Amino acid sequence: MNDTLTPEWIAVDWGTTNLRAYAMQGASVVARAASGDGMGQLTTAGFEPALMALIGGWANAASVRIIACGMVGSRQGWVEAPYAKVPCTPLNRPLTHAPSTQNLDVRVISGLSQTTPPDVMRGEETQIAGFLAFNPGWDGVLCLPGTHTKWVHLSAGEIVSFQTFMTGELFALISEASVLRHSLTADGWDSAVFAEAVTDALSHPQRLAARLFTLRADHLLHDAPAPTTRGALSGLLIGAELAAARAYWLGQNVAILGTQDQARAYQTALRPQGIEAMLVDAEKATLAGLTAAYRSTKASS
Amino acid sequence: MNDTLTPEWIAVDWGTTNLRAYAMQGASVVARAASGDGMGQLTTAGFEPALMALIGGWANAASVRIIACGMVGSRQGWVEAPYAKVPCTPLNRPLTHAPSTQNLDVRVISGLSQTTPPDVMRGEETQIAGFLAFNPGWDGVLCLPGTHTKWVHLSAGEIVSFQTFMTGELFALISEASVLRHSLTADGWDSAVFAEAVTDALSHPQRLAARLFTLRADHLLHDAPAPTTRGALSGLLIGAELAAARAYWLGQNVAILGTQDQARAYQTALRPQGIEAMLVDAEKATLAGLTAAYRSTKASS
Repeated sequence: MNDTLTPEWIAVDWGTTNLRAYAMQGASVVARAASGDGMGQLTTAGFEPALMALIGGWANAASVRIIACGMVGSRQGWVEAPYAKVPCTPLNRPLTHAPSTQNLDVRVISGLSQTTPPDVMRGEETQIAGFLAFNPGWDGVLCLPGTHTKWVHLSAGEIVSFQTFMTGELFALISEASVLRHSLTADGWDSAVFAEAVTDALSHPQRLAARLFTLRADHLLHDAPAPTTRGALSGLLIGAELAAARAYWLGQNVAILGTQDQARAYQTALRPQGIEAMLVDAEKATLAGLTAAYRSTKASS
Repeated sequence: MNDTLTPEWIAVDWGTTNLRAYAMQGASVVARAASGDGMGQLTTAGFEPALMALIGGWANAASVRIIACGMVGSRQGWVEAPYAKVPCTPLNRPLTHAPSTQNLDVRVISGLSQTTPPDVMRGEETQIAGFLAFNPGWDGVLCLPGTHTKWVHLSAGEIVSFQTFMTGELFALISEASVLRHSLTADGWDSAVFAEAVTDALSHPQRLAARLFTLRADHLLHDAPAPTTRGALSGLLIGAELAAARAYWLGQNVAILGTQDQARAYQTALRPQGIEAMLVDAEKATLAGLTAAYRSTKASS
């Protein structure tokens, strides 16, 4: 970064496992950096040093405004940024100042909560704000795949309701730590088996529990290859999620945040149900949301 | 053990995580020993030393007949004991001799396999044989709770069909390794919440995926206590299993192998469905099955 690229402000996406920082000029990225210093690895006192270890070399890093979203604002984070309750706009509450020994101007975006059924998000509200910045007035459903996938109903610029699914985490646990790991020792993913398993789980969600060990036995008895087992496991879990989330996507405009494998898997799973979901760049949405939050602090200060 | 209690034979229950040995006189236990040398910890060459480390001190251990059941007979075990295919009696195939450098007379009981839907068991066939020894001609269903719970349809002394569920393993993975572990840091188990969750999962199996993260959010937002979360998680998973296993238990005589917490949870879950299941001592069944296998070797030799 040279002097003409001195950041105007710094955007920070701080999740459970990763820390990502962006030196910004308006809505443009002039430099980026990332580390594994996620919230899960840090104590409260560790956030400021972790951030400065990453961006301390950037010009003016200690003097420009820093806007952060994600688990950094949880009770175990740098500072607790209280939840805003849906229905509301995604950036509903004033940002929360993080305590700093070096006089950093760090402001943390609040997550959202829902009373019934109980649910929470932190970080996704920023991506939703970014999505709405590119798609103002968009009425429909946004699916945010991840370790914990969120389905979000949006209308008139507000989050009406949302629901979280642990599908990604279950897939990781089952494929890496359960007896099925022995049947998943090679790479690859059979898309035809995936599609069939999605349909099966959607039509007969009560069969899910019975199907899991069948995958293991099919490998033991019939040498089912790893891509078959992986496609079936992924399809069963996403199919079960779609069965539970039907009220979200049925007959709706659906957008999916992400352009990689997991997002494409959701897109593929929805297609036979008559849903042609749009894929949206996740990092672009995160940065647009952080930019909207930064601008709100300029407008009010 | 004194000389009058020299074993006539030795019974071995050798699973993935535990090794249990019993010095036997007829059907009576005269000494017992156990270690953590399960199949999962051993290479093929490690089985014989692991067994002798446990029972080498018993009189005549190296000269009496040793009958073993469980994962010791798997491909990764001491010797592969080929599956018998259901429908069949539980001890259908001749026992398989394990290779021994010390001339031990070790014979391993075969597991059972099923072609459609693909399924396998190793060890449970011995418990089923033991159950039938105490309940000859019993017609109905036997549930064998465990890491991988089995539902087994028995008729006229034969195993007609069976189905394995990973419920126990899923409960352990979710409660110990997923984000829900943060909501399960205290002991206890709320039985009313359990019963409600079972009913809910049985009536609406498609909701399972949606309910899991709700448990986490309910803790974050409303300080749901750990026994509530644990009862709900257990109830949802067992309810989903019962929904998938309905063809097994509906309108049947049901016996459950085990007398501890997990067996009682299944019994409790089935009661509102009009099923009063009988609880059966698991170790007694294992030993009766091993004894039946031992006697079959005496009859044929």
